[in-house]
Amino acid sequence: MLNVERALIICAHPDDEVLGLGGTIKKMTNAGVEVTVLMFANGNEGYTSMEEIATIVETRRIEREVVQKMLNIHHYEAHSYEDYAIPANEITYKICIEAIRKYKPNIVFTHYWQEYNTHKAVASIATDAFWQAGWSCSLDLGEPWKPDALYYFEVIELLNHVSHMVDITDTFEAKMESMRAYASQCTVVSGALQQIEGKALMRGSQAGLKYGEAFLKSINRPEIIC
Amino acid sequence: MLNVERALIICAHPDDEVLGLGGTIKKMTNAGVEVTVLMFANGNEGYTSMEEIATIVETRRIEREVVQKMLNIHHYEAHSYEDYAIPANEITYKICIEAIRKYKPNIVFTHYWQEYNTHKAVASIATDAFWQAGWSCSLDLGEPWKPDALYYFEVIELLNHVSHMVDITDTFEAKMESMRAYASQCTVVSGALQQIEGKALMRGSQAGLKYGEAFLKSINRPEIIC
Amino acid sequence: MLNVERALIICAHPDDEVLGLGGTIKKMTNAGVEVTVLMFANGNEGYTSMEEIATIVETRRIEREVVQKMLNIHHYEAHSYEDYAIPANEITYKICIEAIRKYKPNIVFTHYWQEYNTHKAVASIATDAFWQAGWSCSLDLGEPWKPDALYYFEVIELLNHVSHMVDITDTFEAKMESMRAYASQCTVVSGALQQIEGKALMRGSQAGLKYGEAFLKSINRPEIIC
Amino acid sequence: MLNVERALIICAHPDDEVLGLGGTIKKMTNAGVEVTVLMFANGNEGYTSMEEIATIVETRRIEREVVQKMLNIHHYEAHSYEDYAIPANEITYKICIEAIRKYKPNIVFTHYWQEYNTHKAVASIATDAFWQAGWSCSLDLGEPWKPDALYYFEVIELLNHVSHMVDITDTFEAKMESMRAYASQCTVVSGALQQIEGKALMRGSQAGLKYGEAFLKSINRPEIIC
Amino acid sequence: MLNVERALIICAHPDDEVLGLGGTIKKMTNAGVEVTVLMFANGNEGYTSMEEIATIVETRRIEREVVQKMLNIHHYEAHSYEDYAIPANEITYKICIEAIRKYKPNIVFTHYWQEYNTHKAVASIATDAFWQAGWSCSLDLGEPWKPDALYYFEVIELLNHVSHMVDITDTFEAKMESMRAYASQCTVVSGALQQIEGKALMRGSQAGLKYGEAFLKSINRPEIIC
Amino acid sequence: MLNVERALIICAHPDDEVLGLGGTIKKMTNAGVEVTVLMFANGNEGYTSMEEIATIVETRRIEREVVQKMLNIHHYEAHSYEDYAIPANEITYKICIEAIRKYKPNIVFTHYWQEYNTHKAVASIATDAFWQAGWSCSLDLGEPWKPDALYYFEVIELLNHVSHMVDITDTFEAKMESMRAYASQCTVVSGALQQIEGKALMRGSQAGLKYGEAFLKSINRPEIIC
Repeated sequence: MLNVERALIICAHPDDEVLGLGGTIKKMTNAGVEVTVLMFANGNEGYTSMEEIATIVETRRIEREVVQKMLNIHHYEAHSYEDYAIPANEITYKICIEAIRKYKPNIVFTHYWQEYNTHKAVASIATDAFWQAGWSCSLDLGEPWKPDALYYFEVIELLNHVSHMVDITDTFEAKMESMRAYASQCTVVSGALQQIEGKALMRGSQAGLKYGEAFLKSINRPEIIC
Repeated sequence: MLNVERALIICAHPDDEVLGLGGTIKKMTNAGVEVTVLMFANGNEGYTSMEEIATIVETRRIEREVVQKMLNIHHYEAHSYEDYAIPANEITYKICIEAIRKYKPNIVFTHYWQEYNTHKAVASIATDAFWQAGWSCSLDLGEPWKPDALYYFEVIELLNHVSHMVDITDTFEAKMESMRAYASQCTVVSGALQQIEGKALMRGSQAGLKYGEAFLKSINRPEIIC
Repeated sequence: MLNVERALIICAHPDDEVLGLGGTIKKMTNAGVEVTVLMFANGNEGYTSMEEIATIVETRRIEREVVQKMLNIHHYEAHSYEDYAIPANEITYKICIEAIRKYKPNIVFTHYWQEYNTHKAVASIATDAFWQAGWSCSLDLGEPWKPDALYYFEVIELLNHVSHMVDITDTFEAKMESMRAYASQCTVVSGALQQIEGKALMRGSQAGLKYGEAFLKSINRPEIIC
Repeated sequence: MLNVERALIICAHPDDEVLGLGGTIKKMTNAGVEVTVLMFANGNEGYTSMEEIATIVETRRIEREVVQKMLNIHHYEAHSYEDYAIPANEITYKICIEAIRKYKPNIVFTHYWQEYNTHKAVASIATDAFWQAGWSCSLDLGEPWKPDALYYFEVIELLNHVSHMVDITDTFEAKMESMRAYASQCTVVSGALQQIEGKALMRGSQAGLKYGEAFLKSINRPEIIC
Repeated sequence: MLNVERALIICAHPDDEVLGLGGTIKKMTNAGVEVTVLMFANGNEGYTSMEEIATIVETRRIEREVVQKMLNIHHYEAHSYEDYAIPANEITYKICIEAIRKYKPNIVFTHYWQEYNTHKAVASIATDAFWQAGWSCSLDLGEPWKPDALYYFEVIELLNHVSHMVDITDTFEAKMESMRAYASQCTVVSGALQQIEGKALMRGSQAGLKYGEAFLKSINRPEIIC
Repeated sequence: MLNVERALIICAHPDDEVLGLGGTIKKMTNAGVEVTVLMFANGNEGYTSMEEIATIVETRRIEREVVQKMLNIHHYEAHSYEDYAIPANEITYKICIEAIRKYKPNIVFTHYWQEYNTHKAVASIATDAFWQAGWSCSLDLGEPWKPDALYYFEVIELLNHVSHMVDITDTFEAKMESMRAYASQCTVVSGALQQIEGKALMRGSQAGLKYGEAFLKSINRPEIIC
């Protein structure tokens, strides 16, 4: 699953990439995979006091840059949608197609579709773009590119089915550290660090590992066996 | 379930609150519960002759005020979306969060999510807002507030599962009277009064009551037992 | 099922009507049914080389007119939405209601709801409009009209359930010819002609026919038996 | 839907045929349809006092014969399974296939599959037998016979979708009278008569009728349109 | 939820009661609730070496008695089905009805229905018995009794929805100790102790608790609000 | 997916292995994979004239042996259940566990779970056995063995999702020939040969192949990525 050259993560908010698959990102970059993150929102709603309102977007941008170094993420393509305002429309759809054609990932990761509104919107457009990017159409968005597989990660809701469990025992600490780097969010997402630990232990125990991250491979577009 | 101080009803159109839970509203206000209704649409499509087109919005506003008195509804927060034009976006989402934080309801009621377009949109944003309103974020929308429970009511489609059945035998007549007060809609919604009676009898018979109203409690956010 | 006077097909893109039910259209028009197609998109994304970008919309309009003659389609009501930009909102909803009230179809066909984004949007508004068009409301969109039945056809995803299988053995060649007339799309939709043949053979074999087209009748609004 | 020569009803217990479709049975027999009921259980658990335990099976047999006359049911094929002991196995499966091949019904009715244990078992075997009876196999069970359609009726749980609503205004009183004839069950099924009335009114109101009975047509085996 | 006099747990195998709700049992018995466990299987398959084959049933009986003391379980009604041989039939169904009528629980707990074969069988009969035990029928199984609520616990598969989260911080150690008392099973269920800890941490973190146990309240039979 | 040493196919009736994955079997055996088929039923219902009733079981045994040679199947473990009498119980469950532990397959194939009764029963026990065979328990059934993956094939109902599409262009003729070898069944399963061809063409066209066979990988037990 992870034995690839390039991976693309399509997510909603700054910290979703850490909560969802921070350990797997680090595991991939340690192994030389080039990881790009396409992120739609700027984090404007994540302030816990009125004083932060003017600075929260900038704060999260800076936090994100620290995380980038920690996890060796090759590139963040960060858009400026407001946190509650990521629509599933032709513009965001084209952003996904264009990114897939530009970064040419072997595998794509995105939000699980049974989450709340903006995560659901991202899951929907990324899922369709994963498939449409390979069609011979819309060439102004780049040359057609077919990634091999699409995986869903879990942030708020648990996946109902888990097709792949990644052993993140070696990179668990990096995941925790990255979440701590998103310091402004540790109080918004109540008990973020405990959540990360509890989920990693539980997922690990389901597969005989110390710490795990769970994924669901999309079963909508067949892998072809020649 | 109803032994609370404040309840908030989030619905789409003027008359949905009566069709869905008119008997329960009256039962609550009789018991001293403060009931607020957040309503998105202005009723502009509910005219049955071309003569009414210019006056229908005003007609329904007046009908709504009569219903308010009949049912002792504390407050209507009525927005001016057109009937077919209630989007599920950041604006309506923030309206819901803001209302939950302002009215501080113990329980929230909204549309069942398996209904037609605008009812589905309201169900979606109200469900997510019910949960996000309690987060430490977006403080310009008010202080975080966590209602205890969210219930779905039925208007057009029957609930697939019923978790709570409210005995409205004593307030059934008030429900019928309120629907009659929405006189302009009794012919649009064909056989509205017969529908109310048939559904109340059927729901009642499922629970050994004369007249009942059915609700489905949301099972997405756990009640915490300490 | 097909023994009717008028049928309305509500679809997204130029060629969906052929891929989904080209054989059934020809079978209906051969039998004297008046068939109207309401189509939302202009086909702007279906170009396979950068040279076509300026002409693709016009190309597809011309192709569509050839198909119209081949299949004896009475009328195309063609809108100008871009291919990835068909929203499910009050405007497209009203377009559907207005078309149902204007063309007074006995049966309506539309996309299956488990398809990709724009097909899903069309399925959603057409399904609700099929039912709301019969209400006594919104009279500026025309006199209320209740079609007898709504059927879903398959384009990209296979229907999970098939309620009706139409024998298109006699009109299969016309379906293939119509797809060939949409020449610009035969390479976009990879192996379009093979897909049509494989699906028609497979669907036929499920019902003891040579070639078949599959439909799923909507079971959301009851047929009334007096 | 009801314009047929012969109908077969496959149900679990004595009174399910009345609760589920008593009004439709009477409507069919009034119109000359030959209606046969295949019933699996003998009613042994439906006693409300210990005195009845020895006589309940005989009581229900006698009640059933009264109902047969009231509704003009042509024939009851009544088996002797105990009420909680109707298995979904090869014996009950063959009983269904044999009955379909023997009575040659145009339409078959059975329990909705989302009910409790024995109703679910009957729904399962009847659904598969409806289809397998038409295969060229198992000839010792009779000549292959393909009924045109299969409909599910509702007894305990409401149907999630309703494809056909039968107007039983004229035969509603016969339905009530038949339930009264199953006198031993009117107290077991709490408020049986109120349930019948409430459901009939509610179902009727959904379709603009006074009293209705709801059915869901099976969409698993396609109707073939030549 | 737990503020009751008597609780009944219906489970398949010796250790399911600990894995599923060991912390909640202890919390209830600490508060004076009378807890009874109805257990179907004798544990005959849980041996990890051929030497244990003759003694495993006895071993698990002894382990169970130790657990009973640790958790203060009032009574185990233990049946002798083999581990893979718990059928969903009239005998096990009657066992459930009889137990509900005998122990008169206010609340019932059973397996989640989306588990593997025998757990699924127990979930099915317990769910139906929960409801049928309250009917006026089958009096030789005892006087009708209606428990107030039914809750599903999780053993192998995670619950898809969680309606109630019990804080087991104070009784977590008792849960771990009880699992250790089921010493023969700690190697069969790989990493049983890690699983318990990971799941408790993860569930706790979802509700702001240190350790939690998750439950899903049945929404099939309405709570009546008078 | 197919790059393995040993594969085990668990199916219900003689010919299901050909209808479901005949082309893939041949492709595997051509590549040196050792393929074993575990088959439950003896084919006793598949006679199309009363004359065959006494000989059909023997006929199908002989046909099966011809197919074995054609497809180079290493071994058939054929049980003697009657066609409609394959229960999902502890005996069939143990047969599956024992076979998995004995043949030590890398991959397992079985029926899709949304099929008719006996296919559903086989799908259910095979799915659970796939997972339980790897547990340290029930050692008299053999040493624990964990296959890497479980795939569902399609016989009667189409798979709702397809995760893997196998190119059977080179072995399609062998599949057809094998079905012809099951001569007694070609008339029972109406249009068996046309069905095979239509489905293979359609599945192929979905993946840009001439002929394809579709599979759905089980997503219930995670693949572990270390």
